[in-house]
Amino acid sequence: MNSDANVQGALLCPAPFSDPIEIRLAHGGGGRMSQALLERVILPRLKGEAAALHDAAVLPATAGRIALATDAFVVQPLFFPGGDIGSLAVFGTVNDLLMAGAQPLALTLSLILEEGLAIPLLERVLDSVQRAALRCGVQVVAGDTKVVGRGQADGLYLAMTGLGTVAPDRHLHPRQVRIGDRILLSGDLGRHGLAVLNARENLGFETDFISDSAPLIEPVEALLDAVGGEGVHVLRDVTRGGLAAVLHEIARAAGLAFHITETAVPVEPPVRAACELLGIDPLQLACEGRFIAIVPPEQESAALRALRTCALGAGAVTIGQVTQGEGVWLESPLGFSRPLEWGSGELLPRIC
Amino acid sequence: MNSDANVQGALLCPAPFSDPIEIRLAHGGGGRMSQALLERVILPRLKGEAAALHDAAVLPATAGRIALATDAFVVQPLFFPGGDIGSLAVFGTVNDLLMAGAQPLALTLSLILEEGLAIPLLERVLDSVQRAALRCGVQVVAGDTKVVGRGQADGLYLAMTGLGTVAPDRHLHPRQVRIGDRILLSGDLGRHGLAVLNARENLGFETDFISDSAPLIEPVEALLDAVGGEGVHVLRDVTRGGLAAVLHEIARAAGLAFHITETAVPVEPPVRAACELLGIDPLQLACEGRFIAIVPPEQESAALRALRTCALGAGAVTIGQVTQGEGVWLESPLGFSRPLEWGSGELLPRIC
Repeated sequence: MNSDANVQGALLCPAPFSDPIEIRLAHGGGGRMSQALLERVILPRLKGEAAALHDAAVLPATAGRIALATDAFVVQPLFFPGGDIGSLAVFGTVNDLLMAGAQPLALTLSLILEEGLAIPLLERVLDSVQRAALRCGVQVVAGDTKVVGRGQADGLYLAMTGLGTVAPDRHLHPRQVRIGDRILLSGDLGRHGLAVLNARENLGFETDFISDSAPLIEPVEALLDAVGGEGVHVLRDVTRGGLAAVLHEIARAAGLAFHITETAVPVEPPVRAACELLGIDPLQLACEGRFIAIVPPEQESAALRALRTCALGAGAVTIGQVTQGEGVWLESPLGFSRPLEWGSGELLPRIC
Repeated sequence: MNSDANVQGALLCPAPFSDPIEIRLAHGGGGRMSQALLERVILPRLKGEAAALHDAAVLPATAGRIALATDAFVVQPLFFPGGDIGSLAVFGTVNDLLMAGAQPLALTLSLILEEGLAIPLLERVLDSVQRAALRCGVQVVAGDTKVVGRGQADGLYLAMTGLGTVAPDRHLHPRQVRIGDRILLSGDLGRHGLAVLNARENLGFETDFISDSAPLIEPVEALLDAVGGEGVHVLRDVTRGGLAAVLHEIARAAGLAFHITETAVPVEPPVRAACELLGIDPLQLACEGRFIAIVPPEQESAALRALRTCALGAGAVTIGQVTQGEGVWLESPLGFSRPLEWGSGELLPRIC
């Protein structure tokens, strides 16, 4: 048996060459370069005590129903005021689990990297993923990395999946919505969409718009603690497509009409002013730290009180109610009613 | 209240314009166009009875530990002899679960689409995902779709996550590997890598190389039924980086040496001939339907017998064994031993 120490040493060290500072195609080839990227760049940032961070992970048994949430993230630019693609992925996935009534347990992360991506930039994104996951009390337990050629991606894309468990008393679903239910919104609209748009297009607004990107654990827990699983019919985070899309989707799924009091919908004055200049409806702008809760009328006060105890629900208000019929309607102060436009979606690409 | 039927009709119909035949940025914007793509193209293909296919799904409680596996898929071309990116994603994810000793339960799918992608092509990929999922007895339960501009992707990328449960007696892990263990391989190597390379580069070989892409449910079940959870120490599918990468990774993690009998490794003659012409080591070529099993010596015969009862394990053989030491060594028929090269990974980008 040949056991030449030098040969053997080279075999055991995944990348004997000098470390590159850019992603190369070989980092996605599954050989030594992939292993070196994993061991030197990815694992030191994401590996938790329990996690082996291979493409599969085994977790302890859970009690209760299981929730799975998945999202791809292609936001451009990768870093924007108030967040970045890494924290956005974690908060977005955690929020999707919360909206299903689940307690987040674990995350998986798939990376698609463009050849030429600066490795320090990848490290910043992974550090942000890890900080965000710690803040949410979850770990990234499995992952995968692929590399595509120059011009076949735009820096990097992420795909994240979240696993959670759902308590027995939670049955959040549009079909739970009843006539008379109140529609609550946890705070002001539109800051995430405007922050990303401003950062990408150099719109030059004097106001620094800061994304509202945040995990909604506290306000959702406060709400469910106050009114119980039966006291909330639907939770939905206001993301792509904005409040308008979220309301239309739920109203369609519920087979009922939603009536929104136009003046009750909170939009901060600088956001409203920028939207007017740009010709954008703030109700179509994405948020990443806002949600609606649809609750029975007898729970409205308790729900609002609970939400307002949290920083992320301090601006919670009732914005409308559910009636027989169909569609989503904006009620003006003078008593007129007009349909709320459901945007086609072309306004704001790559917002998350 | 304004209840003009036409206005209301337009609101309720997500895409009142004529359907486009190409993906547009607006399909990722979260508005009516997104909803129309979901309702007309994606849901009819993937929706199962139990699944709502939103970005989050709630599943029944499970018994036992939970396995999560995740992978991104960027294979180019999207369709190749023996498979396509859709079936590859399903089989690859299911196989990752099986290699963790898990029974696959559910899948999630994130799509990243390039503006201009032909919708019929997307439909073919989704049909393939659905056929593959049915074959594996699993459902896609949650999904997400993002769109990026022209030149910011290469048609489409997928990210898939699988959920499974792990029986109590299964503890597959490199740290279970013992000196004296036998290393079994389920069949011949290299056909997936060569099929993709041949399709992409028009190499013009007269032989039509067909990918080995397949779900490994049957041979893994047969193996575990025959020798029990304690009778197998490690399972690993031979994917990116080929047999060489897989053996090196496990040997490193186990802190032991692997000795492979060079002549025992099955490579079909046309694959070996093409590899010689191209200067590629077949042990570095990816498969998508082959795996190694590391078993205690007393289980070797039973394990081989069990594997050979299945079409996907018909060519199963013992290729080597585990000793004290480190590294992966190729033993020649004349009794010489040389280190098995661990490729850098640059040979074969975008193979899965």
